[in-house]
Amino acid sequence: MTTSTSEIIGILGGMGPAATADFYAKLVSMTPGSSDQDHLRTVIWSDPTIPDRTDALLGDGPDPTPWLLDGSRVLREAGATVIAIPCNTAHAFVPRIAEHVGLPIVHMIGEVAQHLSTMSPRIHTAGLLATTGTLRAGLYQDWLGRFGIRLALPDAGSQDREVMAGIRAVKAGDRDGTSALLERAARRLTEQGAQAVIAGCTEIPLGLPADAVDVPLVDPALVLAQALVRRAGRGSTAGEAA
Amino acid sequence: MTTSTSEIIGILGGMGPAATADFYAKLVSMTPGSSDQDHLRTVIWSDPTIPDRTDALLGDGPDPTPWLLDGSRVLREAGATVIAIPCNTAHAFVPRIAEHVGLPIVHMIGEVAQHLSTMSPRIHTAGLLATTGTLRAGLYQDWLGRFGIRLALPDAGSQDREVMAGIRAVKAGDRDGTSALLERAARRLTEQGAQAVIAGCTEIPLGLPADAVDVPLVDPALVLAQALVRRAGRGSTAGEAA
Repeated sequence: MTTSTSEIIGILGGMGPAATADFYAKLVSMTPGSSDQDHLRTVIWSDPTIPDRTDALLGDGPDPTPWLLDGSRVLREAGATVIAIPCNTAHAFVPRIAEHVGLPIVHMIGEVAQHLSTMSPRIHTAGLLATTGTLRAGLYQDWLGRFGIRLALPDAGSQDREVMAGIRAVKAGDRDGTSALLERAARRLTEQGAQAVIAGCTEIPLGLPADAVDVPLVDPALVLAQALVRRAGRGSTAGEAA
Repeated sequence: MTTSTSEIIGILGGMGPAATADFYAKLVSMTPGSSDQDHLRTVIWSDPTIPDRTDALLGDGPDPTPWLLDGSRVLREAGATVIAIPCNTAHAFVPRIAEHVGLPIVHMIGEVAQHLSTMSPRIHTAGLLATTGTLRAGLYQDWLGRFGIRLALPDAGSQDREVMAGIRAVKAGDRDGTSALLERAARRLTEQGAQAVIAGCTEIPLGLPADAVDVPLVDPALVLAQALVRRAGRGSTAGEAA
């Protein structure tokens, strides 16, 4: 074994499953190393049966908290030393589970806010493509506010017909038609002055190529992967998040 | 929950980690469904510190059996009802662990042999790109022999300088230079009469595009994913394995 860390990454996933696979691939690609043995031990609980997070936040479905607690327990018992949740919307439930999981949670949205605050030239306004649940819960508003960054959001029509339609298409396994929808939504945000666009739902980078947006597209999954690699003491990561 | 199965897929991974991420993405993409909740609950133990399988089979490194048993225990305790191992070479150790894990193992190489036996037109000779460990352990020779399929193998020079060099490059995160190496090795097999080529190391499909080979390139990870989806009672899969 050439690994020098005792950290075991716990990924609370399945929201959705394709985004979880994508997140793990990003974690692997961000870890510097030249052989299998340089990589981090990881345990992934991917439970796609977790009730839809946006439905719950809009009062249209069951509270996913018990499922999140159950998954956290599985990860802890498997030996995880830290938890990462590659689902933006699920972060609305982090305050309800944080005290009960017995492990630190690396907060994806907090990491994105910090990442944005260090970008150069300085970001005053960031655009956000995210689920209606994430918008309603005010997750990015709260975190970006702490760093003095203003948020540009889609109007209600664009949110419904472009952003949520694109996210649902990715979840249904249809990535082809989605790029045009999400591209249009992103363009509306840059027209409002967004100097960077946050792909604030883990399905969005699967349907929107970074080069389709003319400002930096920040992928929270990559930012989270970088934070985990740094935390595990693997020094500089193998790439850049934005 | 729209899921109707109590099956929880256990993935014993990390050999290597990129191949594990790729396998999980394939499992998700092969599962029919239009929302997160249609997908299978999955737990993944990805331990890249498992000693190199080929080194062990060549007598150059520690036996990975204790690591495989330990990972299987984690998966069983997490609730897995079946185990899949997305690493061809690790299947050399399946006879040593099978009786101790207390869960059925869906045998990737057995599934590939069965899959090849149903291909049309009938396959009499299949080429194999795999680690030296897999070749030495005779895994594909044994299984394909049961179905009356002959194996075409690279000569020692091609195995060393093309196949193993390509696999090591993928493990080091370098996928660019590998395609030409693996393509040359595949061509030598079709020149020997191979009517299909088995990408018999989970790293190979990451470095060799299917359209670079002029006979069907069979991806054991896809065949294994299909077998798991069928087993979980999800009927026809969302794609074809070869």
